[in-house]
Amino acid sequence: MTIQALVFDVYGTLFDVHSVKEQAEALYPDHGEAISKRWREKQLEYSFLRQLNGQYVPFSQVTQDALRYTLLELKLHVTEEQITTLMETYLTLDVYPEVSSVLETMADKRLVVFSNGSHDMLDPLIEQSGLADRFEHLVSVDDIKQYKPAPASYMHALNTLGLKREEILFMSSNGWDITGAKSFGFKTAWINRNGLPVEELNLDPDRIYDDLTGITEWQ
Amino acid sequence: MTIQALVFDVYGTLFDVHSVKEQAEALYPDHGEAISKRWREKQLEYSFLRQLNGQYVPFSQVTQDALRYTLLELKLHVTEEQITTLMETYLTLDVYPEVSSVLETMADKRLVVFSNGSHDMLDPLIEQSGLADRFEHLVSVDDIKQYKPAPASYMHALNTLGLKREEILFMSSNGWDITGAKSFGFKTAWINRNGLPVEELNLDPDRIYDDLTGITEWQ
Repeated sequence: MTIQALVFDVYGTLFDVHSVKEQAEALYPDHGEAISKRWREKQLEYSFLRQLNGQYVPFSQVTQDALRYTLLELKLHVTEEQITTLMETYLTLDVYPEVSSVLETMADKRLVVFSNGSHDMLDPLIEQSGLADRFEHLVSVDDIKQYKPAPASYMHALNTLGLKREEILFMSSNGWDITGAKSFGFKTAWINRNGLPVEELNLDPDRIYDDLTGITEWQ
Repeated sequence: MTIQALVFDVYGTLFDVHSVKEQAEALYPDHGEAISKRWREKQLEYSFLRQLNGQYVPFSQVTQDALRYTLLELKLHVTEEQITTLMETYLTLDVYPEVSSVLETMADKRLVVFSNGSHDMLDPLIEQSGLADRFEHLVSVDDIKQYKPAPASYMHALNTLGLKREEILFMSSNGWDITGAKSFGFKTAWINRNGLPVEELNLDPDRIYDDLTGITEWQ
């Protein structure tokens, strides 16, 4: 069956979440890298836990909660101004260098963004990147308030597209997102930007690429 | 309302999961600490993801999968013999030093273990610790195949005890377990062995203690 739509995860896949490092380093010298790493870990953990608990709040809130925890854990001084400044970096994350040309190459397919990000953080990010016109839809789990990798979240993307599962190629650099999408029935391409092993969850990706350039073979 | 039963998490709460470090160091010199840390992280991540995906396998399998991933990620040589040797350390984890005397002090309450561990790993661990006689029940989520912190898991503990939620004091050193139990309606005591901040999930524990000694105030 031919792939009709390419569905892209956002954080870590199209945009580098660790581009917050520079601002973190400016505010907290020698802690930029640790803040960036831990912030991302706690952001993911909190989204998983809120899905498991059934205590959904938007990803912008999850992201802010994770940042606050991170700064406290690292025993750094926390002010609301610093939180605000760091949260703003999430609206201007660096897009990975190959993204624009890959989207141009694949422009004959339906191109869709599908993210845990709520629209208050997702829309400004895509807008400032200059890529907004490339995408048919910016699908957020906030519409149904169920985080990836819960099956209901992938179902929401499927419903939005009105296709069959196997007509969708889903791309993410996040192993947990690939296993969720694979479990749901999408075709999956893992963008393994960090050279990590495949997750030991018996849900191997259909394809593995070093960056998004690899997906042009689905043209 | 008086507390009738004390319900104890196992891994990290009664037993030190990082006591695997010594054997890991013996097998992989200079990597013991990294293996121990990453193994635990992936073990938790995989239990969360399998609960979110609805792809339950017993915790002994999750633990083994997490170990395999960890060794691969650290680019260490993996043999089945090394996996087996490290998995066996999980059956003889060190019990924290205060546990035995605290259980003795609280012996007039119903004392129960409640763990994500499957019985194949949970029962031998408790047995070899010499604490088995202290506990009325060893409750495993494997009976219902839903991992903590899913609400159904805490419900299973509640059903086993036949009490009201607020008659149960639940203890864990794991922040995600405390927020899950609190969300479900148990009284919670967070055993904050590592001096961490409270999780930013709006589900603060009722009490916080440095180790289990603190719970003797509920006598």
